[in-house]
Amino acid sequence: MKTVFVVGTKNSGKTTLAEFIVLKLTERGFKVAALKHIHHEFTLDSAGKDTYRMKKAGAKEVVSFSPSEIAILRSPGDADEEFRRLSEGLTVDGFDYLVIEGFKILSGGISRSFRILTCKTMEELTSLVPTMLPNLDCISGIVASSFEGKDFDGVPVLRFPDDGLALISRLTGAQSGA
Amino acid sequence: MKTVFVVGTKNSGKTTLAEFIVLKLTERGFKVAALKHIHHEFTLDSAGKDTYRMKKAGAKEVVSFSPSEIAILRSPGDADEEFRRLSEGLTVDGFDYLVIEGFKILSGGISRSFRILTCKTMEELTSLVPTMLPNLDCISGIVASSFEGKDFDGVPVLRFPDDGLALISRLTGAQSGA
Repeated sequence: MKTVFVVGTKNSGKTTLAEFIVLKLTERGFKVAALKHIHHEFTLDSAGKDTYRMKKAGAKEVVSFSPSEIAILRSPGDADEEFRRLSEGLTVDGFDYLVIEGFKILSGGISRSFRILTCKTMEELTSLVPTMLPNLDCISGIVASSFEGKDFDGVPVLRFPDDGLALISRLTGAQSGA
Repeated sequence: MKTVFVVGTKNSGKTTLAEFIVLKLTERGFKVAALKHIHHEFTLDSAGKDTYRMKKAGAKEVVSFSPSEIAILRSPGDADEEFRRLSEGLTVDGFDYLVIEGFKILSGGISRSFRILTCKTMEELTSLVPTMLPNLDCISGIVASSFEGKDFDGVPVLRFPDDGLALISRLTGAQSGA
């Protein structure tokens, strides 16, 4: 399984780009999983729901199982360990790609990954690119639209949506060569 | 891992009993997971959320990862196969008990299980007990409060909350003898 990271600043185009990548990889027949990293406290569960009652009663993992959705909810342990578990499970289940939005903290040390940075401004780009090199495969997001040239510090800059399909080719091409 | 089924008719006391079981097993130091079976179409995800966008774009599994919760969402395949996967995962993760609310369809064929039927009325009890025998370990729910005697068709009837701790003893005692 190949892991695609879309990291970047707030409102720089992360979700739109991640959504596009999921769509185009799925269209090409790949089995794709997506992960959204949320930095603040957040739960899909809500007070009063039966699943919430089970969690409050002490259940360490709560599963909601309906004809339309299986939802497995748990409190996370160590982020790297949780990520390893998730990756292993998805690999066993035959996924080709995991598209991750956010989670810059995990951007290093994952094998077979492709890393995209999205930014709004040149100031953000100038400050963030050095923190990600040499593990940065592509730059995109709002900043790319007005960017002059084809690369920044040797990293290709791809406009979205114009260069979207070129980005997908890099993703899938990089996979077959890995 | 031991699986506890709490099955029964609508508003017969399933959730309250399942919540009590999770609480008391957790208090006794067991690692407990809970599963809620929902018969109708249902999703914890909602339109507009980023996770929902990824699912609509084609992601076969969507993970929301925050400091307070990991939520793994997927469309279910075959129910028995999904249940087997979930059980295996929980067993690997060292869970002692899985408390299931609903899912009568799965009540047979699971090893190391304890099955509780909750009903509101004697009519429900009379009609449902034969469908579950011989895989029925205990009867409870609203019907138990007004029930005369200690068993029905040879199955112990336990009042809740009065006999709650006796129920827990049966659960844990049955485990040590299994």
